[in-house]
Amino acid sequence: MPAGTTHRPWRDIRLIGFADRAPLAQAWRWLDAAGSVPGHETVPAENATGRVLAETVAAPKDLPPADLAAADGYAVRAADTEDASAYNPLPFALSDAASAARAHLISAGTALPSGCDAILDFGTVSRIDADRAEVLEPVARGEGVAARGSLIRAGTVALAAGRRLRPQDLALLAALGIARVAVLRRPLVGLAIAGSKTGGVDQLGPMLRALTTRDGGVPAGPGRMTFKAAVAEAGAADVILIAGRSGTGEDDIAGLALAEAGGTRALHGIALRPGGSSGLGQLGAVPVILLPGDPLACLAAYDMLAGRLIRRIAGLSTDLPYRIGALPLSRKIVSSTGFTDIVPVAVSGDEAAPIGSVETGHLAASCRAAGFVMVPETLEGYAAGDIVRVHLYD
Amino acid sequence: MPAGTTHRPWRDIRLIGFADRAPLAQAWRWLDAAGSVPGHETVPAENATGRVLAETVAAPKDLPPADLAAADGYAVRAADTEDASAYNPLPFALSDAASAARAHLISAGTALPSGCDAILDFGTVSRIDADRAEVLEPVARGEGVAARGSLIRAGTVALAAGRRLRPQDLALLAALGIARVAVLRRPLVGLAIAGSKTGGVDQLGPMLRALTTRDGGVPAGPGRMTFKAAVAEAGAADVILIAGRSGTGEDDIAGLALAEAGGTRALHGIALRPGGSSGLGQLGAVPVILLPGDPLACLAAYDMLAGRLIRRIAGLSTDLPYRIGALPLSRKIVSSTGFTDIVPVAVSGDEAAPIGSVETGHLAASCRAAGFVMVPETLEGYAAGDIVRVHLYD
Repeated sequence: MPAGTTHRPWRDIRLIGFADRAPLAQAWRWLDAAGSVPGHETVPAENATGRVLAETVAAPKDLPPADLAAADGYAVRAADTEDASAYNPLPFALSDAASAARAHLISAGTALPSGCDAILDFGTVSRIDADRAEVLEPVARGEGVAARGSLIRAGTVALAAGRRLRPQDLALLAALGIARVAVLRRPLVGLAIAGSKTGGVDQLGPMLRALTTRDGGVPAGPGRMTFKAAVAEAGAADVILIAGRSGTGEDDIAGLALAEAGGTRALHGIALRPGGSSGLGQLGAVPVILLPGDPLACLAAYDMLAGRLIRRIAGLSTDLPYRIGALPLSRKIVSSTGFTDIVPVAVSGDEAAPIGSVETGHLAASCRAAGFVMVPETLEGYAAGDIVRVHLYD
Repeated sequence: MPAGTTHRPWRDIRLIGFADRAPLAQAWRWLDAAGSVPGHETVPAENATGRVLAETVAAPKDLPPADLAAADGYAVRAADTEDASAYNPLPFALSDAASAARAHLISAGTALPSGCDAILDFGTVSRIDADRAEVLEPVARGEGVAARGSLIRAGTVALAAGRRLRPQDLALLAALGIARVAVLRRPLVGLAIAGSKTGGVDQLGPMLRALTTRDGGVPAGPGRMTFKAAVAEAGAADVILIAGRSGTGEDDIAGLALAEAGGTRALHGIALRPGGSSGLGQLGAVPVILLPGDPLACLAAYDMLAGRLIRRIAGLSTDLPYRIGALPLSRKIVSSTGFTDIVPVAVSGDEAAPIGSVETGHLAASCRAAGFVMVPETLEGYAAGDIVRVHLYD
């Protein structure tokens, strides 16, 4: 249980409303202390893109493992070419049959023959026959050569703990002969859909599964299910999300159901629009997040609350996973102090414009939006022409 | 076959070198005309995040499907509340047992009872008993109500063709009752690893599979294999990548192997560093891209050439899939005109610094890099202090 929170039972806020709502910063403090990183596992390196290294990987050997040609051409001893020029072509032997300084045809990436220390490229060598060539330019020692250990030395850090593996890291691991890596286990996110009120179709499950996966979690849970079944199945979960029935209506039973299951609450009601009926609590040591049933409010609350926690315990940044564009507003955004407002905006011609208002927002507006603007609690909005930070969906 | 290219057989450039290298812009013109979008398929909407819509989805019904409460509270006829105030509380009936204007306890998202046109929130209603309440404030008609069709009208565009589906789009599709959607088929990318020279481990396959997946393709091919086997297996591919053996060494057989298989070339040798030994061609109607065997050169050539083609035929943007940061250079970047240079840079304290040089670059440097700077053919580099566009890996 994070410090600074209390073990109160869930207060029934149904038919009453939220007396006070916690500022988003308070919710973040709770979230940043809740839950725990779910341990390590070892996986094949070749499938590990996107996974987060649990331990630093040291190079078990030098790269290159020997002095290699870095380019196609002829390997020579640089000193033998010192006097070469177009006016003074120097004879070189291409095979042991000829008697002269030796030039070895070589391909990039292969080991330098003994005694060689430079690569001549094809343009500076004139081939006479299979056994003989003339060299037209001098080459400096080390030219065209990748020296043993010049790229990475055995025992030094190849990839540091905490790194999210990129496609090219897989090639480096293969080059180092590392077949398996220790990575953070992906947090298991138990999803319980407490029910939307607008029909039999589960709108929230597919969205929450996709969001959870995006943020490095593994969604578990059959979508629409009873809260009891979700709790039973979520026994092994690292985070539990309960979507729907978080509000103040008489059928908003999410908070009470958590209390009946033995859960505790930290806060319920957050100064966030949409998404204000969200709640934070715990079931044993497992953080539980109550998300609103309205799809747009659920999206906002997932992004602002649940995603932050899931990303952190997945070993990723707590920052929102959206590209940010700084764009001028073509129309003002009206907000009110005391709430963090998440305002969908359309972008056209390098300008952003709010779509609808926070109060009448809906998923359909979000789907028309290129992204959203966060209006902090301290502001009443933004004027037309203000440069705002737009979190871009694509 | 794209216009403006020729059907020449592959010229053997081994032991000779690239006489002339095509500017990157020429390669892009070829790539932007090559290949074709691989058709459509229908998939369950709930698993379709990241897929690209092949057809515009029109709303089959209004959203909301009826006038709904947008908030928890009491549904009333607004006109009945006109004279209400704290000094003049008006009596309302909560059940049919009481005789007065009727107020209906209602939860957000449920249908308005007949005759009601506004929602009073809990704070403006004083409950007397199970049957009776007093209303303390008037409410305007439409307040707290989401009118039928106010969010989206039946027959209008919900999601346009070409859209890459976001998590929230899945919720909208579910709300509209759309269970399956037509999406672009992901391009099948045949991978043939013609072989790296630095040992038995396939360094390129895992990287190329991860890159292909990132760019919306489906990698096919067992990694290291002979070119003949790759061609045989890649019969159904939309793009073929041949990695390794693309250069001028005597063992660089990728180009000739393609010619023997009946392929044609468009260009071989591109003014790109690293990655200059890349080539573009076709086998039947299928575009074939030769990528260098050095892992860093392969990465650069994948990003600059192959990824562009794969993203386009996957229905995505041809832009590089990296976030861009504008950062000042703490040290100069030395380049030379006539080549597009891909320079790995480290970022610290909001400054970028080149890592190594283009000539001595290696995957290990790329793995230490936060991203890369593209130096165009026309420039000799950038001075310290110049603001450059850094393509960021994370």
